[in-house]
Amino acid sequence: MADLLIGIDFGGTHIKVGCFDEALRLHKRGSVATEVDMGPTLVVDHIVGAITALLDCTGHKLGDIRAAGIGIPGPADYQAGILINSTHMPGFRNTPLRQMLIDRLHCPVAFNSDTNVACFGEFTAGAGEDVDDMVFFTLGTGIGCGIISHGKLIQGATGSAAGVGHVIVYPEGEPCNCGQRGCAEAYASAANTARRARAAIEAGATSSLASLEEISCKDVYQHLARGDALARRITDDTAGALALLCVNMLHVTDPARIVFAGGMIGAGPALLTPIRERFDQLIWRIRRETVEIVFASLGPDAGITGAAAMAREATQEGPS
Amino acid sequence: MADLLIGIDFGGTHIKVGCFDEALRLHKRGSVATEVDMGPTLVVDHIVGAITALLDCTGHKLGDIRAAGIGIPGPADYQAGILINSTHMPGFRNTPLRQMLIDRLHCPVAFNSDTNVACFGEFTAGAGEDVDDMVFFTLGTGIGCGIISHGKLIQGATGSAAGVGHVIVYPEGEPCNCGQRGCAEAYASAANTARRARAAIEAGATSSLASLEEISCKDVYQHLARGDALARRITDDTAGALALLCVNMLHVTDPARIVFAGGMIGAGPALLTPIRERFDQLIWRIRRETVEIVFASLGPDAGITGAAAMAREATQEGPS
Repeated sequence: MADLLIGIDFGGTHIKVGCFDEALRLHKRGSVATEVDMGPTLVVDHIVGAITALLDCTGHKLGDIRAAGIGIPGPADYQAGILINSTHMPGFRNTPLRQMLIDRLHCPVAFNSDTNVACFGEFTAGAGEDVDDMVFFTLGTGIGCGIISHGKLIQGATGSAAGVGHVIVYPEGEPCNCGQRGCAEAYASAANTARRARAAIEAGATSSLASLEEISCKDVYQHLARGDALARRITDDTAGALALLCVNMLHVTDPARIVFAGGMIGAGPALLTPIRERFDQLIWRIRRETVEIVFASLGPDAGITGAAAMAREATQEGPS
Repeated sequence: MADLLIGIDFGGTHIKVGCFDEALRLHKRGSVATEVDMGPTLVVDHIVGAITALLDCTGHKLGDIRAAGIGIPGPADYQAGILINSTHMPGFRNTPLRQMLIDRLHCPVAFNSDTNVACFGEFTAGAGEDVDDMVFFTLGTGIGCGIISHGKLIQGATGSAAGVGHVIVYPEGEPCNCGQRGCAEAYASAANTARRARAAIEAGATSSLASLEEISCKDVYQHLARGDALARRITDDTAGALALLCVNMLHVTDPARIVFAGGMIGAGPALLTPIRERFDQLIWRIRRETVEIVFASLGPDAGITGAAAMAREATQEGPS
């Protein structure tokens, strides 16, 4: 019986695949190296090979798949299922990835951005599974975002909704790679938290971080734990920008929960506590807000889980 | 045949009512003074009286109404159809206004905020009728907002979505009545545009506005037209805050159109042109945005039209 759901998470270094039942219980996961240089056809071969290997382990075959979902790094035409281009994947220009997967898997394939897919995973089976309205942030090189309103992802007129990393939190502030100034992401992504620490040291700030050859965001939080004053200032600014995003998103889409994800949440309470404190200082006084600010709970499985959840939704709504 | 739609716009001074056909063509409009001191029962009597008078004019009766909709000044429990309280309407505490109207009109009644209703009117039959994703701002005492995503209003977990007037555009900026600092509304509402002009004059700025006893937003734009330098600075700041809101909303919900409404749009190009110019300066360079920034087109009929459109939608989805 075709009742299996496949979730595919197309990452920069690895493509993860997961095989789920209809209740989104994970049967088996696997992965292949991404190797985008091989081009789309061979990469799809590898994905299908990884899925077949998963199915073999549990005594299933491709015909047992009801639907699959894939989360991909943008930019893409999400309606058409086409990966438009990516600086990291020059061979994937205008690649009809969804149709290529449909042709090989013979089932409906849901297709969305990696961030939206991870957001939908946390919403369906993780930190947001008991709410209908959620905002999801993933802190990495940039700040990814997904927005769930009444149980549905907000996609926007051009599929570019939830680019909240480029909300301007400090007008005339730090230049961002996008060409704007003062974007949240220019301050509070993992990469820019590390960058601000490096810049402060180059400008003469004293810090235990100065002895390191390279400074990562993880280093900044480690030196914060050891009492470094510069690390305190840098991480306070990160929390301040993220708290401003939380206040603003509360006023825009009124989520019941705001969920932070990405490797940076490994910093734990040193990241979360100051975001919550700064939020409480910034938010209005005319009513008491009940939104909860929490960490994601699915870890690296968020992508495959969300892709499988989208696959399930696609078949419930009819093939997409 | 019950094929008429009634739109009710519950305003501070007048309650407007409109009678529409199923294609949202306005048959007849009317209004009654709001007189909230009379209490909910008598106000509902007046609303029903005004509707009956409209129907009489066109040879119809209450039984010809398929559905009605009402836009009300918040705060309210929009799910339950209850007006919770309002500083302007002390007699309307926890008033089950929707049920009171259902009992009198014997038809489904859609119930939403005045801003969401006006937004839905512009979306259905006005400046946004050919798009699926729209952001609507109304500039008055505060800044009201409505957000349409994929043809549906975003309501949020507590019904408070689209409170975008309280998005913080200038951290640590002007105090807002809500208790935050730097809210868009603290700069760019009609009331606060006038307030900033008054404050600048009190602080010693030279301006042709200084001769006026009271300064309204309309005065500021009139003196701008006559070349007053302070009026230029004040209105530039208004446009700057509104352009920041437009940039941020583009990144959050990715609308195809941003629609400004409210009495302040009477300022015409003197308001709209600098918003568009500032938006073009602020927005990122990594792709060309196609969002259009325009004025609303329904004028004072937006509320009754949107309420009738919500009534129609409520009957299409089943009574709400």
